[in-house]
Amino acid sequence: RTVIVADTAHASVATALHLLGMEIVDAATGPDCRLTGTAVRAAAAGREGDIAIVVASAGSTNAGVVDDLAGCADAAAELGAWLHVDGAYGLAAGLLPECRHLYDGIERADSLIVDPHKWLFAPAGSCALLYRDPSLAAATHTQHGPYIDVFRDVEGWNPSDLGFQLTRRASGLPIWFALALHGVDAHRDAIRVGIDLAKRFAAALRASEVAEPVLDPQLGVVLFRRQGWGRAEWQAWGRRCIDDGVAVVAPTTYRGEPVGRVVFMHPHTPESIIDELIATLEPVAYQHRSQNPGLTVDADSIAHELERLDRTPER
Amino acid sequence: RTVIVADTAHASVATALHLLGMEIVDAATGPDCRLTGTAVRAAAAGREGDIAIVVASAGSTNAGVVDDLAGCADAAAELGAWLHVDGAYGLAAGLLPECRHLYDGIERADSLIVDPHKWLFAPAGSCALLYRDPSLAAATHTQHGPYIDVFRDVEGWNPSDLGFQLTRRASGLPIWFALALHGVDAHRDAIRVGIDLAKRFAAALRASEVAEPVLDPQLGVVLFRRQGWGRAEWQAWGRRCIDDGVAVVAPTTYRGEPVGRVVFMHPHTPESIIDELIATLEPVAYQHRSQNPGLTVDADSIAHELERLDRTPER
Repeated sequence: RTVIVADTAHASVATALHLLGMEIVDAATGPDCRLTGTAVRAAAAGREGDIAIVVASAGSTNAGVVDDLAGCADAAAELGAWLHVDGAYGLAAGLLPECRHLYDGIERADSLIVDPHKWLFAPAGSCALLYRDPSLAAATHTQHGPYIDVFRDVEGWNPSDLGFQLTRRASGLPIWFALALHGVDAHRDAIRVGIDLAKRFAAALRASEVAEPVLDPQLGVVLFRRQGWGRAEWQAWGRRCIDDGVAVVAPTTYRGEPVGRVVFMHPHTPESIIDELIATLEPVAYQHRSQNPGLTVDADSIAHELERLDRTPER
Repeated sequence: RTVIVADTAHASVATALHLLGMEIVDAATGPDCRLTGTAVRAAAAGREGDIAIVVASAGSTNAGVVDDLAGCADAAAELGAWLHVDGAYGLAAGLLPECRHLYDGIERADSLIVDPHKWLFAPAGSCALLYRDPSLAAATHTQHGPYIDVFRDVEGWNPSDLGFQLTRRASGLPIWFALALHGVDAHRDAIRVGIDLAKRFAAALRASEVAEPVLDPQLGVVLFRRQGWGRAEWQAWGRRCIDDGVAVVAPTTYRGEPVGRVVFMHPHTPESIIDELIATLEPVAYQHRSQNPGLTVDADSIAHELERLDRTPER
């Protein structure tokens, strides 16, 4: 059976569907990179009865934009398809009142995920998976064996029945602990820093003479182009920013065009990073420090950095 | 395509193959619970050209026995099938010279796994997956996206190309650290304790008047029957052993027959556990302490327990 996937969906969606032996139909997104109900209907044309799932993103990995979830939910309902929302990176921003409207329609998803190891600052390897009807998941995923089934006589709920993994770490505990210790507001504030920096960086790009943002950032991702730069120049830029200790950045593509990409996430990222990044794009202002092969790190500089971070005011 | 799986294979094998949409053919094991080349050939009869994979265990979860890997390798070669060896629990014992013969033939596997979070004492959630030809895995699993492919310009090897997961913890680090700190011999010794205890427990069962082992233990798992006990009695036994703090045990089945099951693993398990476990099976000797509802744990008893463990001599 067939699954409709935006041409902007994360690579792991294709991998998962390939393993499942399901056929993928790419839905074309427009210049704003958002999947819409219209795009879903266009992709389904001619095989309406065969669409099993519609996969929407909130937000997409490459450009960090949230699909038109309400439109996707309408189209999925018309097609009798399951609606899955991939909020691995972006769903965390749903905590912010000023971002909440981006997620309108998510309440109609049949399943959704968020990776707390991304924008909820938890250790790597955690994923929260929510089902509208968990009994369907249990019917699909519950494993049976004489050494397992004996525990089913005990009343209760077992998270290993709701996914294909059996032994798992208690990766929800650090998230619970962080929420209990710092509270939801601290998480909101921390996420807000990334979004604010993205918007400031986009404004600084617009004010610069050589570069411009490709899209107005919705979340913490900024894609941008620079006059005269192609793939080789962007590749060299990424390498240089890392070597010089400015930022860990990498180029990407926007609808086939090589562009720069920056993701703001850490709540202690200093505002000065914006000027530093702009300088890497300007031909004169930025003095490339890469005469030294790679970064030089010593105990003193680490101690200094820790002291500096400690002094950064909580935002 | 079709996969030959022993009727003793772990439930996760069936789950994985179900996700892949592959057809499972059960191969019947004998009283010793081991998959043999003969059993593989019998299962393949009539569909020789369609067998994609043979899955063997080293050792099986329920009974802890290692399949006839050399025989399975012969049969897989005749069928032109991939040989996968599931050593999640048992492969660790291959470190012991006295157990090495159990694994003869494993050098012919196309892929094999071991879970270091089992008998290599690493934190939960680690799996070592080895391929004979990693380039086949890379061709299958490498994910592509504009935000990922940029890193492919860098020379080198990326473990995320060899499995379907992209973001992963560095779960190999604790294993490397434990090996570097304690050495391979310490791991051998720790595994040996479990096997010794299993053999002693089996001997104690034989010496008892009421119970007997179902199989001679190969590794650290002992299945055993007791006169007059059916499913209900075994279920009550498991509950009682947990409530009384004797051991965390659970009944299982051996070829459909309800039996007891004990797995020895922790290297500091005291030898006295054998007499304690035998007592739980004898009608007179064991005074059930479960007048108390569940275990009572307080800070004093935990401190006492830690002190006791600290005094247990290294074995």
